[in-house]
Amino acid sequence: MTPDEFRRLGHEVVEWVAAYRESLESHPVMSQVSPGDVRRQLPAAPPVDGESLDFALSDLDRIVLPGITHWSHPRFLAYFPSNASLSSVLADLVATGLGVQGMSWQTSPAATELEEVVMDWLRQMAGLPAAFTGVIHDTASTATLVALLCARERATDHSQTRGGLQAEERPLAVYTSEQSHSSIEKAALLAGFGRKHVRAIGTGETFAVSVDELRAAIERDLDAGVRPCAIVATVGSTATTAVDPVAELAEIAAETGAWLHVDAALAGSAMILPECRRLWEGVDRADSLVFNPHKWLGAAFDCTAYFVRDHEHLIRVMSTNPSYLRTAVDAEVSNFRDWHIQLGRRFRSLKLWFLIREQGVSGLQARLRRDLANAQWLATAIAAEPGWEICAPVPLQTVCCRHVPAGLDDEAVDAHNQAWVDRLNASGFAYLTPAVVKGRRIVRVSIGSEATERKHVEEAWAAMRRTVEHM
Amino acid sequence: MTPDEFRRLGHEVVEWVAAYRESLESHPVMSQVSPGDVRRQLPAAPPVDGESLDFALSDLDRIVLPGITHWSHPRFLAYFPSNASLSSVLADLVATGLGVQGMSWQTSPAATELEEVVMDWLRQMAGLPAAFTGVIHDTASTATLVALLCARERATDHSQTRGGLQAEERPLAVYTSEQSHSSIEKAALLAGFGRKHVRAIGTGETFAVSVDELRAAIERDLDAGVRPCAIVATVGSTATTAVDPVAELAEIAAETGAWLHVDAALAGSAMILPECRRLWEGVDRADSLVFNPHKWLGAAFDCTAYFVRDHEHLIRVMSTNPSYLRTAVDAEVSNFRDWHIQLGRRFRSLKLWFLIREQGVSGLQARLRRDLANAQWLATAIAAEPGWEICAPVPLQTVCCRHVPAGLDDEAVDAHNQAWVDRLNASGFAYLTPAVVKGRRIVRVSIGSEATERKHVEEAWAAMRRTVEHM
Repeated sequence: MTPDEFRRLGHEVVEWVAAYRESLESHPVMSQVSPGDVRRQLPAAPPVDGESLDFALSDLDRIVLPGITHWSHPRFLAYFPSNASLSSVLADLVATGLGVQGMSWQTSPAATELEEVVMDWLRQMAGLPAAFTGVIHDTASTATLVALLCARERATDHSQTRGGLQAEERPLAVYTSEQSHSSIEKAALLAGFGRKHVRAIGTGETFAVSVDELRAAIERDLDAGVRPCAIVATVGSTATTAVDPVAELAEIAAETGAWLHVDAALAGSAMILPECRRLWEGVDRADSLVFNPHKWLGAAFDCTAYFVRDHEHLIRVMSTNPSYLRTAVDAEVSNFRDWHIQLGRRFRSLKLWFLIREQGVSGLQARLRRDLANAQWLATAIAAEPGWEICAPVPLQTVCCRHVPAGLDDEAVDAHNQAWVDRLNASGFAYLTPAVVKGRRIVRVSIGSEATERKHVEEAWAAMRRTVEHM
Repeated sequence: MTPDEFRRLGHEVVEWVAAYRESLESHPVMSQVSPGDVRRQLPAAPPVDGESLDFALSDLDRIVLPGITHWSHPRFLAYFPSNASLSSVLADLVATGLGVQGMSWQTSPAATELEEVVMDWLRQMAGLPAAFTGVIHDTASTATLVALLCARERATDHSQTRGGLQAEERPLAVYTSEQSHSSIEKAALLAGFGRKHVRAIGTGETFAVSVDELRAAIERDLDAGVRPCAIVATVGSTATTAVDPVAELAEIAAETGAWLHVDAALAGSAMILPECRRLWEGVDRADSLVFNPHKWLGAAFDCTAYFVRDHEHLIRVMSTNPSYLRTAVDAEVSNFRDWHIQLGRRFRSLKLWFLIREQGVSGLQARLRRDLANAQWLATAIAAEPGWEICAPVPLQTVCCRHVPAGLDDEAVDAHNQAWVDRLNASGFAYLTPAVVKGRRIVRVSIGSEATERKHVEEAWAAMRRTVEHM
């Protein structure tokens, strides 16, 4: 495609994206297609000859859009807010247009140095101490895997340079809350610890990890010759945004020599609000920390912030140094390929740069405060409504609730809640996520799409009550 | 940012990208800035108040562009071709504008089903059997890590569901060529095998792995109670595009029960040319295979194609199934979150869809054939020039050479080659990558940027000779 063809179609795509964002409310939030509906409209073999992309643009409307679940919709209240602020969309277009690799400083110095600067902006915005250094990863799942690999290598004095984990005599264990994200267990399994050595520690009424149970589990392991390797704290759990007591976990980590990783994938964005920082008090003692500016904060996916206290250790675990990647300036610069699993890397810092400049810290703060207030409003409304229950504390933007009709047993209540949320989701009016917490079915209302104003929360709440009434 | 502001600035960014691509030849290929030059032009603290992104756009020209190494430049002959075809740039803008997550079928059915279709297109284009199923990963480094994790779990009958690699009694070993990419060793170390169990097998004159040495290494290991776990074949090595004999390695893998992973990160794109497929004969017997459409083929980074023969095994190793990710249709659909390490995923299949439709298979083939012919032309020219040597076979688009002035010893020849390539790179006229192969300094001329025509190769070759003459 020539630059001139790109101009013509590029302007059309810009209009298409703008029109898409303006028309969000006209779409059902959750896609209404059935399995196979999209696939059967596409040719099974690739085209031999090229064609104008005008056809592809019209196929977007005809084939792709019906198969889209609209994460930017103002009544998207499912999963987590995954904002792709339009400023960051522009930045991503610049990055893709430049088409550069930021694997080494020399392969595009601006990609490395802009990332150093904006990650330090982000550190300051979240109130983290200067001892932390940040790097952009793709997802929290990958960053958590890196954290557990760094923990493994610190605990074994770099076993990977010798016989590897398989040559270690005393097994290592990882501790995390039973409410922690599935990526924690997945990372522990991939890192070779084995499910037998992953301790899912019980939680109390607020779904925060029980410090007593954690201490007891560690003691049992020490008695059995198992070494505590890593503690993963969750700040803002996926199901209920539960908050583990980071300071107490940091104390246990210090006592035992375990690595402390803090998973604040969603909640980290909230830390640009000074009034929220009490939620992760003690975070300055973590060895590593991950949060996702690509969630609530608004940088288009993927843009995960991984902060570490000892970046030399990270580099030692992750670095390779083949001749074809060496450059004369290596001693003076950061080569971010050595800060994660991947070698190639996009110029993702542009997304944060554009987002933060366009909104300013105050603009981002105002939007997040709006969402926190909307969540409090909804929680109050639900709590006041007969037959409805709030199922967990609401420290952030997620409200967990259920409807409890009189006279039903627990199983029937679970089935009822699954049924009404399925019906509401299928209607396309709003989209919520059901979950199971401690064996009970709840419904999560996760507020935080950029487009979600109070009226959309009110509309969704009205739809929830209406749906229940018609069951 | 409102859709209307996005319209105004979006049109400007489209023009900016088009003008950038038109002006590539006016830039030095390798960025000329010094460490710190970009950083010191950026504020150390984030802005409190938002501002118009008009300033950011002008900062792109003033601060960012001088710090860019231009991977799309027609005389970018370094590392590997990393094309971001403008059709795929458009597709990526659509993906970012939609801002959807493709982690589950339900979170956007079109993202899953379009990926299924275009990955099957790619399978057909590369001449792979229908037994292979493809999924988009971010980079070959990550896909190779996944391959070794799958190998580990197959060899241990899913040790991760028990005590993990650390509970295995007989150690596992990984075999690969001494010329394989650094990501292979990195993946083996991260997967817990340990450097002691990574066998870097010697290579012969063509830099292909020695099958005899591989057999001998496996026998030594078996005698010592070490289990062969995985063989990683390289098709198109990074330094010299050397090609391991896949069919013979497949035979050894079958005999020993080892997993066969084929790393064709660069060379896989060439397999859309039937005349190149003899280079990976036997690939149909591989357990897994990775290549990067984001390199030579032209889909903007990141877009790695990972193919497996047993996707049920992949899912068993990678899946998690927490309540908040379950949906009613899970039994009928693919949930690609279970096909790799990450949970969140971009709508990356759009890039392949637009690229393949706009060019057609025939258009892509014509461009790759142009590059193969340019490499042959250059290799012939260098071989005919007194004082110059071709250092490796040229099966693909990379020409490895050096200049050998009369009367210098080996070390002086190495220093001389490093010196002239540094000088040429610093001039900004062309950009080549030096490497060390079997202890000797060589220079790689890696052809394959979309913009690189014969005349640019001729110009670069003239500049190489001119630079050497003025040393």
